[in-house]
Amino acid sequence: MHIHETDLVIIGAGPVGLFAIFEAGMMGIKCCVIDSLEDVGGQCTALYPEKPIYDIPGFPKILAADLIENLKHQAQPFGPLYHMGQQVTSLEKLQDGRFQILTSTGTVMVTKTILIAAGVGAFGPNRPPLEKLEEFEGKSVFYYVKNREAFRDKKIMIAGGGDSAVDWAISLSEIAKKVTVVHRRPKFRAAPETESQLKKLADDGIIDLMIPYQLDGLVGNYGALQAVKLQSMDGNTKEIETDVLLPFYGLAMDLGPIAEWGLHLNTNHITINPADCSTNIPGIFAIGDIATYPHKLKLILTGFAEAAQAAHAIRAFLHPGQVYHFEYSTTSGVPSFT
Amino acid sequence: MHIHETDLVIIGAGPVGLFAIFEAGMMGIKCCVIDSLEDVGGQCTALYPEKPIYDIPGFPKILAADLIENLKHQAQPFGPLYHMGQQVTSLEKLQDGRFQILTSTGTVMVTKTILIAAGVGAFGPNRPPLEKLEEFEGKSVFYYVKNREAFRDKKIMIAGGGDSAVDWAISLSEIAKKVTVVHRRPKFRAAPETESQLKKLADDGIIDLMIPYQLDGLVGNYGALQAVKLQSMDGNTKEIETDVLLPFYGLAMDLGPIAEWGLHLNTNHITINPADCSTNIPGIFAIGDIATYPHKLKLILTGFAEAAQAAHAIRAFLHPGQVYHFEYSTTSGVPSFT
Repeated sequence: MHIHETDLVIIGAGPVGLFAIFEAGMMGIKCCVIDSLEDVGGQCTALYPEKPIYDIPGFPKILAADLIENLKHQAQPFGPLYHMGQQVTSLEKLQDGRFQILTSTGTVMVTKTILIAAGVGAFGPNRPPLEKLEEFEGKSVFYYVKNREAFRDKKIMIAGGGDSAVDWAISLSEIAKKVTVVHRRPKFRAAPETESQLKKLADDGIIDLMIPYQLDGLVGNYGALQAVKLQSMDGNTKEIETDVLLPFYGLAMDLGPIAEWGLHLNTNHITINPADCSTNIPGIFAIGDIATYPHKLKLILTGFAEAAQAAHAIRAFLHPGQVYHFEYSTTSGVPSFT
Repeated sequence: MHIHETDLVIIGAGPVGLFAIFEAGMMGIKCCVIDSLEDVGGQCTALYPEKPIYDIPGFPKILAADLIENLKHQAQPFGPLYHMGQQVTSLEKLQDGRFQILTSTGTVMVTKTILIAAGVGAFGPNRPPLEKLEEFEGKSVFYYVKNREAFRDKKIMIAGGGDSAVDWAISLSEIAKKVTVVHRRPKFRAAPETESQLKKLADDGIIDLMIPYQLDGLVGNYGALQAVKLQSMDGNTKEIETDVLLPFYGLAMDLGPIAEWGLHLNTNHITINPADCSTNIPGIFAIGDIATYPHKLKLILTGFAEAAQAAHAIRAFLHPGQVYHFEYSTTSGVPSFT
């Protein structure tokens, strides 16, 4: 079994985790990075790659995906080792003071310090409790729309009553063969303007509203969906021809095993000292949306600044007693850019 | 006399002050901005516009001048009122709790809150004590090189022994007719590599070193320099034909009258509470390099995050008791970009 030995493991490869690679690198610290998603960028990549962000300093407007691309590029000179598509499953303190981390795919890391930049935690869609669901997931059941064009001319069923359900129903109705929206009650949790747009499309016969219904079963073979069974609140059942099912039931946020490490938590957030981003466990630091303290702002920018703060603290932890000779980046540059 | 009434006066239009305009704007706060320099951007514009910066998140590399251009553009939708080329000369607390600010050019502002983002304070070059110096400044005596090409084929004298003096002597020797370096002692305060480069150029007769000499007088009329008088440490005098004098004696940093407002200071820095960037005077906040607290990092990035923190605190100060309904910039956008 190969064991990765390193000075720092960063948990979470969202924007803040990516920038932490850079800041750690500037302090001469190499790192491994773990993320439950397949791609770097966290929510920016998985949930809103094409949304513009306006409050990153120096970017009057930048698409989330472009910000991630830039941050990845900025981290690259420091040669981080990415372990993607895996979650931390266990943490153990070794006799020599280091931590041993095991991931869901069997990666083993031994590290002197850990920086948790896990955002809202390992996150994933709320999955409907349907038989044989796994068989269809990723083939005809999707929780995100990554490429709208892939749904052209399909018979689409959207389940849910929030913003995502309503927005995508309207958007996909332009290119789909048919769009059916299944919701448990007449009230939607969407902006009034978009909700009335949805109702108009329903009145015009462009979108079918199945209310109050809920998902009851999937019909099909080898991952190819043929129909979805619905049940109304008073027991009626229907079967609707469907090529693609999009359940939009929101996100499940899960700190996962991190919650059991003995870190001081405050309603699912890790309490840190904002001066150095340290947690109550020496050697474990936390930054970004998962870290909390009085007056904390949940901004990407705040996480970026915490990454710098944490990198300095981690350096001091790794090299106690050594004074850091500060150099401006304008003077020292970065490995591959100088 | 026109009095500008506003909710917020930002002192300092460097990168952090500029981003504070944006953050305040996102909170619905309009502001006036004061800076002692003629152009926005602080040191980025005045001292190192063409230097690349590597540690701004999302920019693997950006020139200081470009960062400032972007920040100015990002602040623009919020219509800040810039009062440039003037320093704060007095601050008075009015009976209604507001502050009255007077500037060196006679601008009067009455404001509910003040955000100090003054960097190292109003800064300027250390000026040599020479007669009639003012007559030549900006015409044939310069403290910065803004445009290298302007010095092509000139007889240039550089005074000083630090990095700027040595770097510019080497650089300008490529295009000047003649470069003379005047320094009081044989030892330079420059990187060893560049110092030996300078000495080689002197040995090759490309640069004249006048050591140990100091500036003694300017010869010329109507701002046009003809020669510079030098005096050696033991009383010898020389007169050297010169078109352009560049005294590089470092920067004088001056908090100015801000030092007398009763703010808690710590060796020329303003002590703040990092949670909300408040000073000891209610209604006055400070961010960026001028603000200090334990573990403070003097990074532009840190100042950016403090700008967000301060904007939230200023909003709470202006509207006590009102809950702020947080919206992500991806949802709400910015005035002129939506």
